Amino acid sequence: MSEKPASGNDIRMRGFRDRALVETALEWIDDRTEPLTGENVDYSAAHHRVLAADVTSPLDVPAFDRSAMDGFALRGAETEGAGDYNPLTLKVIGEALPGQPFDGQVSKGRAVRIMTGAPLPDGADAVLPAEYATQTDNSVEVTATVAPEKNVGRKGEDVTAGEVLLKSGRKLRPQDIGLLGSVGLTRVSAVRRPKVRLVVTGNELIKPGEPLGTYQIYESNSSMLRGLITRDGAELESQCDVVDDRDEIQKAIVSPGADVVLVSGGSSVGQEDHAPSILKEVGELAIHGIAMRPSSPTGIGCIGETLVCLLPGNPVSCLCAYDFFAGRAIRLMGGRSGDWPYARTTAVLAKKLVSAIGRVDYCRVAIENDSVRPLALSGASILSSTTRADGFVIVPHELEGYAPGTELEVYLYDSVN
Amino acid sequence: MSEKPASGNDIRMRGFRDRALVETALEWIDDRTEPLTGENVDYSAAHHRVLAADVTSPLDVPAFDRSAMDGFALRGAETEGAGDYNPLTLKVIGEALPGQPFDGQVSKGRAVRIMTGAPLPDGADAVLPAEYATQTDNSVEVTATVAPEKNVGRKGEDVTAGEVLLKSGRKLRPQDIGLLGSVGLTRVSAVRRPKVRLVVTGNELIKPGEPLGTYQIYESNSSMLRGLITRDGAELESQCDVVDDRDEIQKAIVSPGADVVLVSGGSSVGQEDHAPSILKEVGELAIHGIAMRPSSPTGIGCIGETLVCLLPGNPVSCLCAYDFFAGRAIRLMGGRSGDWPYARTTAVLAKKLVSAIGRVDYCRVAIENDSVRPLALSGASILSSTTRADGFVIVPHELEGYAPGTELEVYLYDSVN
Repeated sequence: MSEKPASGNDIRMRGFRDRALVETALEWIDDRTEPLTGENVDYSAAHHRVLAADVTSPLDVPAFDRSAMDGFALRGAETEGAGDYNPLTLKVIGEALPGQPFDGQVSKGRAVRIMTGAPLPDGADAVLPAEYATQTDNSVEVTATVAPEKNVGRKGEDVTAGEVLLKSGRKLRPQDIGLLGSVGLTRVSAVRRPKVRLVVTGNELIKPGEPLGTYQIYESNSSMLRGLITRDGAELESQCDVVDDRDEIQKAIVSPGADVVLVSGGSSVGQEDHAPSILKEVGELAIHGIAMRPSSPTGIGCIGETLVCLLPGNPVSCLCAYDFFAGRAIRLMGGRSGDWPYARTTAVLAKKLVSAIGRVDYCRVAIENDSVRPLALSGASILSSTTRADGFVIVPHELEGYAPGTELEVYLYDSVN
Repeated sequence: MSEKPASGNDIRMRGFRDRALVETALEWIDDRTEPLTGENVDYSAAHHRVLAADVTSPLDVPAFDRSAMDGFALRGAETEGAGDYNPLTLKVIGEALPGQPFDGQVSKGRAVRIMTGAPLPDGADAVLPAEYATQTDNSVEVTATVAPEKNVGRKGEDVTAGEVLLKSGRKLRPQDIGLLGSVGLTRVSAVRRPKVRLVVTGNELIKPGEPLGTYQIYESNSSMLRGLITRDGAELESQCDVVDDRDEIQKAIVSPGADVVLVSGGSSVGQEDHAPSILKEVGELAIHGIAMRPSSPTGIGCIGETLVCLLPGNPVSCLCAYDFFAGRAIRLMGGRSGDWPYARTTAVLAKKLVSAIGRVDYCRVAIENDSVRPLALSGASILSSTTRADGFVIVPHELEGYAPGTELEVYLYDSVN
């Protein structure tokens, strides 16, 4: 273990004298975080990617007038009054299939058998659905009235050439991908996905799957963080597992290639907590110690353009600090909304929820029948409190909790079914 | 193109005589769909996978009593009355780090410097946080009272060996993956992901990126369906693009290897609509024609264990039929809830929404200020209606619509930011 002298500002083992407000930390993140540049991507791999530029349609959709039904193309006005007791007979002069138009003209007393999506023949202005038609040899008996324009799709009615189809900043849904395909676009400019490096520190940690020595613990934050960054649209740049050695940690943090470095563990004021002083030395430690519970020993800063978040090693603190700060930065860099990526609901508090004035509380809760109950096991190290919870409630720093019966906004973790 | 004679039950160009109720189709799917078998997967790749069996913890977490803070391990009772004006001095007899316990005993008048996560030394029953301690050489000045058990995590308080950690059927969240890691489990049994084959039919279709001939259209359903099946936890088995030829379509449908075959296009009663009669011949066409709009020309059936859904070629119908039927089957096979995978909200209808008794309507809507407005462009071929929409409203078959001012449940498409 290296034994560099502690710097004059070293706060290790002195505790946090002042803690930043959560909103101060969020403001710092918002001020220095903006969407990454665009990159050209294949549309079919662009599901959930964020557009870096407006997309304009190169063509009309449909590109020609077409039938919206299987049936008979005809002149709608002719069918007026046709019905079961007053059938109209038209001569069938040909057929139109998708991609195979009927070349002639539909004049008075005539019809063309037509399929959905087939080009509408000249002269016709409506399509009679197959169920109101009986074809015999070269004629068709029409037993319904069909008004002009009925069951016909006109050129450009879905999309007009030159129109802005999808705006910059849009996170693409499956149907958006379909729309891109329907106008023939195969490449779009999407905001680059943030590259995230995980630096996992701790002499006591051992990888799951290996035998556990006395006083060792399994390292679990990295697998959780991988799921979280994937959810937030980032990609893993690399993972570095390092012991509590200043030089090793520094090397892992400063090496180039990541947009965001997440350091798990060693973020507090213990003597093995090297990350804060390293960040202060090689970059900026803008925030260290936040008035919240859990996650109070969180650090936030940067090295050049790279954002660095020092996440507490305790799993619940790690999750909470990620969700409050790192996740927000990653989503903003990826061009997404910084808001919590959780659905919200309101529910009535079943029993008292205790917090303290001066800190923000992240309280795991269970919901039963619209009633919300704080989970008793709420220590920062109790990871199972987050797996038992349906979601969480945020208690702002100016409140000392909530009385039973209060209607609260609950953020819901992902559904488990 | 093959020219097989139409069978006696061929309904092509005769229209659907009867349409199945949506609920009949859903019942058929629910009756014959069950979760696929489990497979052994690596826990770190199990994000959003569904457990096929209960997971039991092989160990206690923590595996030993440990400190929850950086500070000093001591005997809590000794600190009673200690404060800024009444400091208590204890002798520091050593230190405990994570993975490096202090070997001796903490007796009266003594303390051990300790870091978060370090094993609690014998004799100590509490940890004084660093901010209430001032260390000088071999002693520490204590300026706060710390009750026994304070800032200490006891063996097994998070997880007990033998306890069911996560139940069969659970869709794993990031923190669940973390919990698995924290007990050292690297393999879990997860429901196999459904393998989905896409069969895309249509002579008039051309792949995006290629030049568009007159009366050709770009094929867009497959790229949309890929996004949808990924969302629903399935994997693409293969995609077969085929012309409207009976033999080719049949080959693509019957070839083994898929849990679900989705046929896009040719599902209706037009003369080029071969898929329904093929399915009837080689398997079971349980449902063909459904009382709904759009997507009325949907077919559902099976070949042995393989579910086959015939989706209309019109993009909005394709999306709607996928979401109503195919997506439900895929989610159920993957062990997930069959429910719509969309968040819900309630909003007040701004203008009349017209439907028809006897059919279910899938109506794309925009939401502005809690007010919901049906989109005027609601034809089945208007894909942009689904990209402009914030979500959709379902009008049940017994209603002819809703009056302005009605409070409606709206299903929200994925957020675009």
